[in-house]
Amino acid sequence: MLHETLDTYIENNKRIVHHELKNQLDYLPIPNRLKESMLYSIEAGGKRLRPILLIASNEAYEGDPQKAIKTAVALEMIHTYSLIHDDLPAMDDDDVRRGKPTNHIMFDEATAILAGDALLTYSFEIISNDPLLSDKQKVQLVQKLSYASGPKGMVAGQFLDMEAENKSVTIKELEEIHDLKTGELLKYAVSAGALIGNASQSQVKDLNEFAYYLGLIFQVQDDILDVTGDQDRLGKPVGSDESNKKSTYPKLLGTHGALKQKEIYVEKAKNALKNANADHSYLMMLTDYFSERDH
Amino acid sequence: MLHETLDTYIENNKRIVHHELKNQLDYLPIPNRLKESMLYSIEAGGKRLRPILLIASNEAYEGDPQKAIKTAVALEMIHTYSLIHDDLPAMDDDDVRRGKPTNHIMFDEATAILAGDALLTYSFEIISNDPLLSDKQKVQLVQKLSYASGPKGMVAGQFLDMEAENKSVTIKELEEIHDLKTGELLKYAVSAGALIGNASQSQVKDLNEFAYYLGLIFQVQDDILDVTGDQDRLGKPVGSDESNKKSTYPKLLGTHGALKQKEIYVEKAKNALKNANADHSYLMMLTDYFSERDH
Repeated sequence: MLHETLDTYIENNKRIVHHELKNQLDYLPIPNRLKESMLYSIEAGGKRLRPILLIASNEAYEGDPQKAIKTAVALEMIHTYSLIHDDLPAMDDDDVRRGKPTNHIMFDEATAILAGDALLTYSFEIISNDPLLSDKQKVQLVQKLSYASGPKGMVAGQFLDMEAENKSVTIKELEEIHDLKTGELLKYAVSAGALIGNASQSQVKDLNEFAYYLGLIFQVQDDILDVTGDQDRLGKPVGSDESNKKSTYPKLLGTHGALKQKEIYVEKAKNALKNANADHSYLMMLTDYFSERDH
Repeated sequence: MLHETLDTYIENNKRIVHHELKNQLDYLPIPNRLKESMLYSIEAGGKRLRPILLIASNEAYEGDPQKAIKTAVALEMIHTYSLIHDDLPAMDDDDVRRGKPTNHIMFDEATAILAGDALLTYSFEIISNDPLLSDKQKVQLVQKLSYASGPKGMVAGQFLDMEAENKSVTIKELEEIHDLKTGELLKYAVSAGALIGNASQSQVKDLNEFAYYLGLIFQVQDDILDVTGDQDRLGKPVGSDESNKKSTYPKLLGTHGALKQKEIYVEKAKNALKNANADHSYLMMLTDYFSERDH
């Protein structure tokens, strides 16, 4: 199954995901400037980690890229909406993301708010209209996506992250915030892919554990890159966590301690993959990729 | 079937809807302040027109209040989210709604943005988890709701409404904006109720026509009240359209012309109801209620 190097695999799937994202948005009969704003953030060059994870998880079972692609782009739309709203002046007030002006800088605040609302809502339309999925699958995919991205998931994480600024939190509280803010969508990625691939319930349970640790790996590495990373590779200023007084792993554990913590998470993630019978899939390589990424 | 006066009917259903809204939110395991913010706008005392319309439409066919209530409150959550985002400083910048401080005034902008996102996302969770609906019904309800409230529906309407400020539009353009901004959710209300009640496709089609005119009636009356209404009854300042330089029916047609236009819409709405075989339901009385409301 692992017939390509990971880099080729990622590049090929990025292309497929990008093509389908364009396909879902280019022909939408909606006001021009609203569409431009949605497309602007969708095309701003993300790593497409979530849709690729979904596709890789689907391949680990009864893989069918055609069945997985629409849910994968719906997930990327949810992720993109969350970035647009997160960057707003009232939230993180970021002017630059991925080396480009953020949505509300490029357009305006009202358009950015509506483009985010539109991407969020449209993602549910895409999944519920997918002709290749059964009604039962669609209902489960909508249940899980609304849970993962809603007030019990990502929105709670964003809210707690905001509340945690300017106060110190424990490593346990930090893990909870990241699990909600980042981990829930990663869990959705792997469990949605597996669900479309007809994995068993116990396999999905193990994959959720895998995704939990993958989310923590992602976050530790994010924090480490903010200390040691290269501004040009990252497309954003380094040291911003420090100036935002954010609680981070390096701050709580030191840079060395954060690296050791990451290794523990990597081992736990790979163990969970073995239990899910998915340790011969690209998910295994993606774990190292998440852990070692430089942007 | 029409065993109560319309006022009693509306009051009873308002109570049922309010109870279920509280029920869906009170026990949510989410951050306190986020929940307070969601509840604040949900409890700010709306007329609950959309959920009542959904319930009335359901009753016109194989009515079952238990099957309709969850979709009804999901719809009210979508409506509430749209008001929270609409009131934001970057959008309409309203400090008061229904006689109370708007969400971002009572809490803060970031919380208001997230409370809106949370209500929008949670509404899809509620529908997809309703144990009384079939998977087929849930999929159709999610398809229709995401269409009605997304970039081809309500969000497009809000965007066009924003673009139309400070410029003159034709009556046709005005109708299109209102149809998207208000009409799409009203269409959802009646078609979702009918769908849950197993109405035929052609009945749903006629109901959509009914809802189209109902939306226009709603909007003409809104515009008329902004000219002739009572500030205390409305819970918002009158004359704000004039000072916002908004295109309105009274401005385009005069107050008398707007009243005549409303009568034409009422007749068309009632004709569509007859065609849908729903002219002996509360939908008929609700049409007059929409047309004659004073707040």
